[in-house]
Formats: sequence, structure tokens, C-alpha cells
Amino acid sequence: MTIKPESTAADIAKAVAGGQSSALAVVEAALARIKQHDTILNSFTDVTADRARARARAIDADIAAGKKVGTLAGVPFAVKNLFDVAGLPTRAGSKINRDHAPAKRDATLIERLEAAGAVLVGALNMGEYAYDFTGENVHDGPSRNPHDTTRMTGGSSGGSGSAVGGALVPIALGSDTNGSIRVPSSFCGIFGLKPTYGRLSRARSFPFVASLDHLGPFARSVTDLALAYDAMQGPDADDAACTTRGVQPVTPLLGESIAGLRVAIAGGHFQKNVFPEAVEAVGHVAKALGATGVVDIPEASRARAAAYVITTTEGASLHLGRLRKRPNDFDPAVRDRLIAGAMVPAPLVDRAQKFRRWYRAQVMELFKSVDVLLAPATPCVAPKLGQVNFTLDGVEMPVRANIGLHTQPISFIGLPVVAVPVPLEPLPIGVQIITAPWREDIGLRVAHALERMGVVSAPPPRGL
Amino acid sequence: MTIKPESTAADIAKAVAGGQSSALAVVEAALARIKQHDTILNSFTDVTADRARARARAIDADIAAGKKVGTLAGVPFAVKNLFDVAGLPTRAGSKINRDHAPAKRDATLIERLEAAGAVLVGALNMGEYAYDFTGENVHDGPSRNPHDTTRMTGGSSGGSGSAVGGALVPIALGSDTNGSIRVPSSFCGIFGLKPTYGRLSRARSFPFVASLDHLGPFARSVTDLALAYDAMQGPDADDAACTTRGVQPVTPLLGESIAGLRVAIAGGHFQKNVFPEAVEAVGHVAKALGATGVVDIPEASRARAAAYVITTTEGASLHLGRLRKRPNDFDPAVRDRLIAGAMVPAPLVDRAQKFRRWYRAQVMELFKSVDVLLAPATPCVAPKLGQVNFTLDGVEMPVRANIGLHTQPISFIGLPVVAVPVPLEPLPIGVQIITAPWREDIGLRVAHALERMGVVSAPPPRGL
Repeated sequence: MTIKPESTAADIAKAVAGGQSSALAVVEAALARIKQHDTILNSFTDVTADRARARARAIDADIAAGKKVGTLAGVPFAVKNLFDVAGLPTRAGSKINRDHAPAKRDATLIERLEAAGAVLVGALNMGEYAYDFTGENVHDGPSRNPHDTTRMTGGSSGGSGSAVGGALVPIALGSDTNGSIRVPSSFCGIFGLKPTYGRLSRARSFPFVASLDHLGPFARSVTDLALAYDAMQGPDADDAACTTRGVQPVTPLLGESIAGLRVAIAGGHFQKNVFPEAVEAVGHVAKALGATGVVDIPEASRARAAAYVITTTEGASLHLGRLRKRPNDFDPAVRDRLIAGAMVPAPLVDRAQKFRRWYRAQVMELFKSVDVLLAPATPCVAPKLGQVNFTLDGVEMPVRANIGLHTQPISFIGLPVVAVPVPLEPLPIGVQIITAPWREDIGLRVAHALERMGVVSAPPPRGL
Repeated sequence: MTIKPESTAADIAKAVAGGQSSALAVVEAALARIKQHDTILNSFTDVTADRARARARAIDADIAAGKKVGTLAGVPFAVKNLFDVAGLPTRAGSKINRDHAPAKRDATLIERLEAAGAVLVGALNMGEYAYDFTGENVHDGPSRNPHDTTRMTGGSSGGSGSAVGGALVPIALGSDTNGSIRVPSSFCGIFGLKPTYGRLSRARSFPFVASLDHLGPFARSVTDLALAYDAMQGPDADDAACTTRGVQPVTPLLGESIAGLRVAIAGGHFQKNVFPEAVEAVGHVAKALGATGVVDIPEASRARAAAYVITTTEGASLHLGRLRKRPNDFDPAVRDRLIAGAMVPAPLVDRAQKFRRWYRAQVMELFKSVDVLLAPATPCVAPKLGQVNFTLDGVEMPVRANIGLHTQPISFIGLPVVAVPVPLEPLPIGVQIITAPWREDIGLRVAHALERMGVVSAPPPRGL
């Protein structure tokens, strides 16, 4: 087996564990590919080459000594730069945070991936403070779409989308508060998992909105996504939201039949404000799964509005000190949204929270008669970098504020979603496989079945 | 045993169960005493005489039939008019709510007291929408202090304090969001229990601030307080905050020795802004318990400020529709506070909530080395009705806004408190017996010991 940087994590781990390749050779190949392509893609803000080589050598030494290695032995990965990486300031896409002291300890999810043998090779570009759907960053420049480098990666985990879509690494981590894993997955044509709220530890990552923040993996195959997810599962006392659930491995279940699962298409809000490509992509997936029924998620538009109210006000609270002391060091577009959030009257947030409880109860009722809901991940394929407006249902609308139209009502109540890439021409677009809380297993099994059927797949990076 | 309306609940229940008195005779005596004194005290807004007589007759019939009766057989009680009483609109001290449809079912706590044999005789005056520390009500007139009818009862459960302090009923129920059980207990010279947040069901009561609202009993003896509390304990699926704790009866434990309990005096904030009578009252209780150590609750003043921020904004959210539609039907002082709350920026509330978590953790640390904390229930004895200002630590301050100075930092994190009356001359004043969450048993045992020592007691209503 020849290991290339474009290989899957599963293939790399197998080759490394089996002695067909050294971990160091894999890491060197990844570093070379990053060097070759990232001047264009701009997905990395830090490459941790020395650390990665040392870690790879340690794995190779373990293998030489006959020690057991993990399921991700030698697999290079990178993380959105809001994850703490020991020795680096956690910039979270900002200029301001670069003045922070370097992190003393890796984020929990990095520790868990490395415990499974994976090798961190760097930190990734992102929208400032994760308040972004475009992948553009005024301080670092935009990350670029590997399928057309004049286009957006999607945000805020844009570097993660670009690095995995561009096959610089087989696995990356990102965060999703309102869609920031699912949007770059869609625009960059890769798989992304936004797990159930509370499933994966957020310890030692830079927050945005405590009640909406999720961390999760990106990959170019469902097996890789599941391998990364399984390696990261488990409670963590350092994240108050992540203390109850044990490890429920999904990788062994991927091959199971999905016959009998009740799959429906999300209607109403999720069928409006879409370009033809989004309709086509959901149609392909629905057809492959034999889904014809349409289920309406009640008040999904209101859920999106409530998600915005909670996001902007909690974001403002988080950044209030920085807004006062260093307003000119923010991205002006982020600053203005946060200042607006700082002035939202509190009773509106209280009502948004009360609505959230009602809405969650309604959606939980739906899951009594449905196992899977299908919805677009984005209204369209990746817009052009710098594109300000697009036309939704005949109305010209700002791009930035409306990319998350179909992701926000889902993350608002913490539902798990696997974003799967439909390789349309000329650009891919994602579909959300939405399941009930804690049922990532179902979403990943459905994604795997779709992959086997050839309906979804990560296209090669044709922009490189 | 002669049963008078002034008798304790324990004596009444014993006499009724033993056939020395009929429940009906007890209820008639209570109704007569209400008729005699309530034109002055103004504690009742509704007297449910027919219902009470029917209920008393049913108890008497049960006794005649040899059936087992509950621990509160024949005991008259009344409830703050924010409890649902079947057949009455739940006015919550307001003018507006009188237009509501009559309640269809009693509040859970009424059902539980009546299941133990108690007899509801009416609903009690209160500050509008419970946003009050004085017991004054512009729509119904003020409830009056039974020890000096020119003085305040304290709010917002002013009618509860007046009815029990005036010996119209041995037991009443009230609510406490920032001090509304402890303040009337103090001013009216009676015992009050504000249980741990989540201990007693709030189902079918009119809310104020979801994360701060507590319901609890008033009585003129600790045994009566414990009897009422025990009858009301237990989870209730109809109150999301009250689902985890089972019944932990306290009445059988009241006589247990309190030797070995670590009792401390709350310092800092709780020793400032007090009149001499509050210092004297805490001193009496501390001396009786052999407590000399002073423990500082860190940032208690800030806790009070945070409680206010959460109260005013959540209150505004609750009443927003009424503020828009019927502004002129509010008490102007309540309306103005709610309008102010409607304009507080959301990030301040977010920070108050985050501070709450920090503060709670600090106080929980304290309870590792202390079992009981002593603090004033009010800064002073009952002020005159209509009194606007008083002088605290040399500064003239508004009465209304500062009566809860010492109660708010405690309810802010849901700690259980027994308010005990120290019968000073010419007016009583209360002391807070504060314990760790779910340790009402300790607070009630300490209160019982103090009662046995003669340090605390409910004085006879000398104003009648």
C-alpha cells in the first residue's frame, strides 16, 4: 500500500501499524503537501512540524518495540486555531488573542486523538472568534476552497474545510455554534460531524456561546470520521456540559444495514431559500434512502432567530472587556455584530431561551415517528470570496448572514448531524443527516450507506 | 384541651384527631377570628368559608367513621394569593390578573396540605406580582403588622405574615424570590421556612423569576413549620425544578441534640447596614448556640446586585405583554421597575449568571467547615407603613429597595433558611438560620433548640 497525503486515515493507520510505512514518512509527506499547497489554500496559521516529527518518531519507536498502537497510528491531523495547542497562543481567529500567553496544555480532544496515535501537524485558519459563516479572516486572509480557490471555504471552521478538502490532512477538528462544521463541510465537499451537544469535550478550547458550542471532526470518508469520533468520545470533568455520556463506539457498526430506518425530508423552512443545487443534493440523498415523506419542523425560522439572539448577546458578554479596551483590533464586521449584541434587552434572551425549551420538546416529538431528517447544509455551493449578496427566493440578501439558514435551527437544540458531501458538478454541496440526541450512530451508519452507494463522496481537490 | 384560633397546628391536629374538638369548630373559630380582626389586618383577599366548612365536615365524617386522618387534621391554613385555588382567579397581588379565568385546580402544595388534613380558609394579600419587600399593595391596601398596625408586614408575602403573626391561622404559605418569606417572618415575629431551591413544588402558582422562586410555610412554632414542610415535600413532575428529591421527614428529628454542629456568624456584608436591633437579635441567637466565629461570604454584595439584575430582567420578560397592553393597571412603582428591567442589556444578565456559578462554588466551600450560618433577616424591625427612607450606616437610603439586603445573597443560590423570630421589645425581628442545600433538617433542628431555650418565639399579636 502506497501512502500518500491524500490517503484516508484508515489506510494510513493500517499501513503504519503494519509496518508498510513509518509514521515519520507519513508526517513528512503531509508537511510537504502543506508546504506545496497552503500558500494558496491559506488553511494553516501554524504548522507544528517539530512537534509532529517528534511524535511520529515516538510512534515509530513504539512499533519497532512491538508495542500496541492506536486506531489512528501515524495519522496527521490539524485543529481550528481555537483549540489550545501547548506552546501556542490560542488565537481563535483574532488579532487580540495573539497577545495571550501560550497554552500550557493541549485541548482534551487533541490529547485523545494523539492517545489513539494521531499526529498534530498544525493549527487552522478560522473566522474571527468563530462569529462567521464565510471562512474569511481580515487578519490572516481568507482560507480558500480547494475545488475553486476563488471561492469561500465557509466558516467559521474554514481552514479545517480547506485542509481536509484539499487533502493536506485526512482529519481536522473544528467547532460548530450555528453551523461552522456543517457549512465548510458543504462548501469544501467533505464529511463533518457536529455531535450531540455535550458529547465531545470542549475543555481547553476558546469558547463562543456556551450553550451552543460543539466541537467535532472533518474527514474525507465516513470511516475516518467515525474513527476520529470514537477516539474522542467520553466524559470529561473539565467541560461541565460533557460529564454524563460514556463511550459508544460507532466504527464497528458502520456496516450494519439501514433497512427499517424511518427517513424523512425536512419541509417548510428547510425547503425555502435554497438554490437549485441544494434541492438537487437533498433529492439525490432522499432517493437513495427511499425517503419521500416530508416532515415539518414547527417554527424552525423562529428557532433560527432565537439562535441569533442568544449568540449575539452571549458573544457580546464574552467579549465585552475586549470591545471596551481594543475595539480597533477586531474585524469591524465582527465588532459591529458584538456591539449590537451588547445592547439587546435581556428579556428578549429570556424569551428565546423559553422558546428553545418549547421547540426542543416539539422536535423530540417528531423523533418518535422518524429516525432521520434530511436537510440542506447550505442554501448553495460555495460563493465567491468577497461576495456580499445572493438572491434567495427572489430577494437579494446578504450572503454572510444567510449561509446558516438551514444549520442554525438544528444546532439550536444540540441535535447530532452528519454533513455529507454530494459531488455535484462543478462544485460539491452538503446535506445534513439529522438524528435524535445521542444517536450519532444512526447518522454515521446512514452516511456510510450513502457512501457505499456512491451518492456521497469527497471529490478530489480540483482547484489545486 | 381547649382549641382556640391561636392554638398551634400540632395542638389542633391532636385535638381533632382525638375527638376533643371537631374540625368544623376549629374552622368556625378561625373564620370568626378572621372576621373580627381582618378588617384591621387586611391580610385576606378571599375567605373560602364554604369550601372550608365542607372540607372540615368531611374530616369530621372521616373521624366519625374511624378512618385515619393526617398529621394536620382540621388545621386551618391560608395561602398567598399567587397560589392557584380552584374557583378563584390567581391574582398574584395584581389588578390585571383578576380578569383571568378562575383556576381549575389547586396548587400542588395546597393539595398536599389538604391531603394531610389541613383546611384552606382563604387567599392572602401580597405585594403586586411579588415584586415587593413592604407588604403594601396599591390595589388591596397594605396588610398590617399584628404587633403594631401602623407598621409594615414586610413583603411580598405580607398577608401571610400578618395572618400567622395575628394568629388568624396557625399556618400560611408564601413565596420567596429575594426574601419574601424571610422578611414578613422577621417583621411579623413568626417562623418561616424558605426551603432549598427545587425542594417544594411550585406547580400551579403564579411565577416571578423561575430560577429564584421558592415556596414555603410560615408558622408560630418550629413544630408547626416542620409539620407543614413534611406534608408538602416530595417530587412533582409539574415543576421542572422539583423532580429529584424524595421525602425526608424532619418532624421526627426536631428533638435531636444539636451539639457538635459548627455554627458561625456571617460577617462582612451581613454585619453592615444593620440597625442595633438586628445586631442584638443575631447576638442572642449566636450566644445561645455558642457561636463566636465569624465567616465571610465572599462577594455577597455583588451577589445581591446580581440577584437584582436577574430578577428585574426575568420579571420584565414575564410581564412584557402586560406592560405593553395594560401599563396603567400596574402599581406604578412595580411598573417602573419592570420597564427598567426590560431595557437592561442581555450581556449583564449573562455575567450575573456566570457570577452566580462562581459564587455558589465559593459558598459550597464554606459549608465544608461550617454547618450553620447566622445572619439578620432584615436590617431593622418593621418600618412604618408608607415610610420611604431609613438611615443605613449613616446614609439615607430607600426602605423598599434595601429591606432585602441580607436575604438576597442567600436565596440567590437557593440555600435553605429558617427565619426565626427574636421577641425583642417593642417589636420582634428575625434571624436567618442558613444551611447547605437540602439540609433543612439542620436549620429546623437548630430553630427548635433555640425555641426550647426560649431565645426565639412568636410573640402574641399585641397590636390587636
